[in-house]
Amino acid sequence: MTLSNYLKENRQWINDQLQQYVRDYSLPGRLQNAMLYSIEAGGKRLRPILLFATGRAFGLNEDKSLAVASALEMIHTYSLIHDDLPAMDNDDLRRGRPTNHKQFDEATAILAGDALLTLSSQLIAEDDHLNNEQRVFLIRELSKASGARGMVEGQMQDMLSEDKEVSLEQLENIHKNKTGQLLKFSIVAGAYLGGANEKEMHEMTRMGEALGLIFQIQDDILDVTGDADVIGKPVGSDEGNKKSTYPQLLGLEGAKKQKEKYVAIAEEALENAGIDQSLLSELIQYLSHRDH
Amino acid sequence: MTLSNYLKENRQWINDQLQQYVRDYSLPGRLQNAMLYSIEAGGKRLRPILLFATGRAFGLNEDKSLAVASALEMIHTYSLIHDDLPAMDNDDLRRGRPTNHKQFDEATAILAGDALLTLSSQLIAEDDHLNNEQRVFLIRELSKASGARGMVEGQMQDMLSEDKEVSLEQLENIHKNKTGQLLKFSIVAGAYLGGANEKEMHEMTRMGEALGLIFQIQDDILDVTGDADVIGKPVGSDEGNKKSTYPQLLGLEGAKKQKEKYVAIAEEALENAGIDQSLLSELIQYLSHRDH
Repeated sequence: MTLSNYLKENRQWINDQLQQYVRDYSLPGRLQNAMLYSIEAGGKRLRPILLFATGRAFGLNEDKSLAVASALEMIHTYSLIHDDLPAMDNDDLRRGRPTNHKQFDEATAILAGDALLTLSSQLIAEDDHLNNEQRVFLIRELSKASGARGMVEGQMQDMLSEDKEVSLEQLENIHKNKTGQLLKFSIVAGAYLGGANEKEMHEMTRMGEALGLIFQIQDDILDVTGDADVIGKPVGSDEGNKKSTYPQLLGLEGAKKQKEKYVAIAEEALENAGIDQSLLSELIQYLSHRDH
Repeated sequence: MTLSNYLKENRQWINDQLQQYVRDYSLPGRLQNAMLYSIEAGGKRLRPILLFATGRAFGLNEDKSLAVASALEMIHTYSLIHDDLPAMDNDDLRRGRPTNHKQFDEATAILAGDALLTLSSQLIAEDDHLNNEQRVFLIRELSKASGARGMVEGQMQDMLSEDKEVSLEQLENIHKNKTGQLLKFSIVAGAYLGGANEKEMHEMTRMGEALGLIFQIQDDILDVTGDADVIGKPVGSDEGNKKSTYPQLLGLEGAKKQKEKYVAIAEEALENAGIDQSLLSELIQYLSHRDH
């Protein structure tokens, strides 16, 4: 199967499943509508697909990790809803549509985010494909990746760094937490569920860390060089928001070189793990060269 | 031990522990300060104490349920932080101190709430006193109680009902979700960890449901009859917020009678469970007659 087919099929599958979960685990009404609105907004579903593809590299069928992948995407979705709020990034548009608080209101958006975050733990705790040891491992790792030493701390640091000079080390630290830890979880969870041994887990963790930075550097590059229609948000918004970026700290060419450094690390880790690299290697290249 | 000693000792203990957990599971800085600020604001710690006391009625030592009780109180604390936000109840004061978003800012308050919610799952997943089956059961039940069919849905319904006529049935439904499910979890979790059998779980669940309504009706009564200095918030705020209350729907005497009905149900369930009732029975009376 080609990568583009793999992406397309699994995107459709996870989209359907996410909607089904929200319908099953909430009551008809405004809260459910707001949860569905942001879930249905789509997006690349990168995190679930990275989880699926990593599992596949270890011989795991995608349906075994569907609930975990859904929980992960719900956390990503809740973080976007809260980040878009007026008190945070104050964004009116997300993927070309009004943001959740614009479509509903701020209170509803806050609650829809809270509900999606809460549901993520429940989905893993109730997933019949997992045993209790797996459920506990995944809930623990997902909480760590998304909490006060992970994603939420990254968002806090990102906001505190606005209008400030930050060093490359500080910038990487922000991104490792804000976007990196959840992306790393995709890889770690896929490897774990696929039965990776200790050495394989170690290498896949390294790969996941590198992948998070590749993703973020390319995000920053696209904000400078991208096509607004393709990205779905205005180009140059980082500069407008006075956020530090890789191109700003390293220049555009320097940022690209930095990205290639992490691509090399990710490829090396993948090779060291000694698994079927085809799909994951293509995904690294896709993430590194994506145009949106 | 008298009830007032039991309350005092366990409050101090859970307060210390909550602070310790936040320090251990977050990084020094603004996010941690905001989490600690609301955690240190204190409060009655009713939910942890109900959990401890229920466990004790089944012969369980309090230290066995400390992490679960802390996770529960973190969820309660996060819900207060988010409910106080300008987009929600827009409260400037909580327990006589500035609310989290007044002390810090809205973005920080949203993130502190998100971080506390996330931490709650992690605490249970990592608790050494529990086996994996217990961890999964408790995370699942706590997520259900606090999510899109529980507390968050209750808050949504509560907001939607403002300025509207609601029936007694609708009012009870709101409260069962908004405050009742988390209070019920206190009882259910204590009984579960204490090794309650099926019949005992059934009765304790009934008791927990009744307790939630006793708590809420007394809350509404205090808003009419209470002393603002003792309660820590202005009397009559429900009327000001145009929220439906039990006294409004049933009159003050009717509300008191409704409360007594649930006290009788709770006492009966406790007796049916056939456990040591002394502490729990005192707690029911305390909740029913509390002045703040």
